[in-house]
Amino acid sequence: MKNNKSKTAKTAEARKGKLLLTLKNQGLTIYNDLENGKFPQFSIPSRSVSNIVYDKKLRQYILGNSSAVRSARNMSQLRSYTQLSWLAFFVNRLVKEGKSSTLRDIYYSSQAFEIDFEDQPESDNIIVDLEALLSFPREDFHIFPEERSSVFGDLTIEYTVPGYEGKRVNLSDHPDGYLIGPSLSSAELIDTSAELVIAIEKGGLFTRFVEEKVHKKFKAIIVDTAGQAPRSTRSLLKRLNTELGLPVVILADGDVYGEHIAMVIKSGSANAAHLRELTVPDAKWLGVWATDIEKYKLPTIPMTESDIKRIYDLQKDPRYQEGNWKTQLEVFLKLKRKAELEAFSKYGLTNITDKYLPEKLELSKSL
Amino acid sequence: MKNNKSKTAKTAEARKGKLLLTLKNQGLTIYNDLENGKFPQFSIPSRSVSNIVYDKKLRQYILGNSSAVRSARNMSQLRSYTQLSWLAFFVNRLVKEGKSSTLRDIYYSSQAFEIDFEDQPESDNIIVDLEALLSFPREDFHIFPEERSSVFGDLTIEYTVPGYEGKRVNLSDHPDGYLIGPSLSSAELIDTSAELVIAIEKGGLFTRFVEEKVHKKFKAIIVDTAGQAPRSTRSLLKRLNTELGLPVVILADGDVYGEHIAMVIKSGSANAAHLRELTVPDAKWLGVWATDIEKYKLPTIPMTESDIKRIYDLQKDPRYQEGNWKTQLEVFLKLKRKAELEAFSKYGLTNITDKYLPEKLELSKSL
Repeated sequence: MKNNKSKTAKTAEARKGKLLLTLKNQGLTIYNDLENGKFPQFSIPSRSVSNIVYDKKLRQYILGNSSAVRSARNMSQLRSYTQLSWLAFFVNRLVKEGKSSTLRDIYYSSQAFEIDFEDQPESDNIIVDLEALLSFPREDFHIFPEERSSVFGDLTIEYTVPGYEGKRVNLSDHPDGYLIGPSLSSAELIDTSAELVIAIEKGGLFTRFVEEKVHKKFKAIIVDTAGQAPRSTRSLLKRLNTELGLPVVILADGDVYGEHIAMVIKSGSANAAHLRELTVPDAKWLGVWATDIEKYKLPTIPMTESDIKRIYDLQKDPRYQEGNWKTQLEVFLKLKRKAELEAFSKYGLTNITDKYLPEKLELSKSL
Repeated sequence: MKNNKSKTAKTAEARKGKLLLTLKNQGLTIYNDLENGKFPQFSIPSRSVSNIVYDKKLRQYILGNSSAVRSARNMSQLRSYTQLSWLAFFVNRLVKEGKSSTLRDIYYSSQAFEIDFEDQPESDNIIVDLEALLSFPREDFHIFPEERSSVFGDLTIEYTVPGYEGKRVNLSDHPDGYLIGPSLSSAELIDTSAELVIAIEKGGLFTRFVEEKVHKKFKAIIVDTAGQAPRSTRSLLKRLNTELGLPVVILADGDVYGEHIAMVIKSGSANAAHLRELTVPDAKWLGVWATDIEKYKLPTIPMTESDIKRIYDLQKDPRYQEGNWKTQLEVFLKLKRKAELEAFSKYGLTNITDKYLPEKLELSKSL
């Protein structure tokens, strides 16, 4: 079996090899500079606001051509230069040893090497620098956040993590859902009978969907994003879309945050403009739209000041300049009220799966 | 197979029958009162602070003998009387139809019946009233919160939820962990080779423990409490302890909140003084103790004002009046610093599993 490795497993190995080579080359550059009596430095694509541009063709944010230098020569850059060098060293070890780590672990691990991080935001920021420098997401570094979402449906996966290589499970076996952690993220997607992926913002609704057999009725894989979808979840959604060819639809609360959850799944965030693995450009936002609030006579809650401020902010975002995205922001602003997914419970616990979901799925065909 | 139902399945059915009977009797009382020209009322064990007492024998908080009346006769009680009647009606339907619901759903579902809840805290409170009235936890009502934790290890369970009856899975099959949702909570615990349950506060450490094969090295089932353990998780810990006879140990951050996470698993919270299914009186708090901070030379963070206030609060709690619980609070107060579980990463990512855990497990035998 070892000679007959699957395409995904081979791709994963090739990817790991490429990362280790990139790290090695960074290290070689440092040695060469030192040999030649030069101060070593890193040149990182700049992540400043002025260098983040929306690429209409790729349908996501990307970084422009500016770069920032972290040089050992410059006293004001020496600190971040050293932090970045240490992180590259540490990531090399994580990847070689096949160990995973949290963002928080990185902050503490640095202390054993007397690398000084003021606080976790500072170490988090250096991790993003390394992503931008190497053009690899931190998941490839085996660095994961704490946040975890889940998935359920007829999807057979095959693990690649140590101790589980070649082992398969079907993600409809546990009706409370499968956590999307390092093992699932790195697993191979083998087989599915599903024809659709439904991403939903809330665990309670996810459970409702499983109970009401949405996975069978709509031949769907259901993903609980648990609020703003973590990157591991966005990466899984992308893989379901590209590797298995499944369309992705999104259900979120009927407010500006819900609309943006859908947008981030579709076209990423400015924060991750240096990465390419996280967007599903053809994903469709099913709802809850602002216009659904009146159409479905949903109970509402008044918006807060910060909800309204957030709408004004998004109205400046290039992705909200046209079509339904623009319209819905305007209607939200007019209503100054919002509605949660649970609001459908007013019409019975299964109203959302019996009526709303099929109507919106039908409508989405013409979007 | 249907004639050969397992003990747990039978117990679950008996429990459901008992709940439905209790609900029916409440309903009958209302009808009888109305027939006899009396205003119907509920008499609920009082949950006011003065009626919450610590029971040394049961080793948990319980309610005293005071009760509170919600009468249809009294204008100031009519509102909560009506809300409680409606909830009993709605829960009866949920249980009969085998549907689950979130706390949030209940708030919205009420609106279809023109039952007025000011906000979700008000409906949450009435749910606790119904728990106290009937002496059943809301999980029996099929009402679950959003929060979810997870479990991993060699434990075979058998589902009882519709569509999955009789189906078994082993909880070591998915190395990212199994969500503790309604299906797992109601499953039968069939078989395990484990000799210990380790409850741990954080998802990142849970992943580390799985990677380092703590489940094999220590023959353990590992539970991620994801912070303060949700009730479904405390209920699972109790079942692992009583049904399978497994000792439970707890690892949490080295601060006053971590100490209290352990205490709540062991002896419950004042909020749930009306319930009995949620405590593991023999559970042991392994750490991180305040005294571990110096012993293991852990990197620390200064306590906030609210950390310190919380220590003074807990010093008034009867459970913190003696032994190690008292000592550790005093040492925390002296140090005025705290240490997270991740702090062990300073000494290598596996320091916590290679050194700290075995040392504390050995020590715990004499606790």
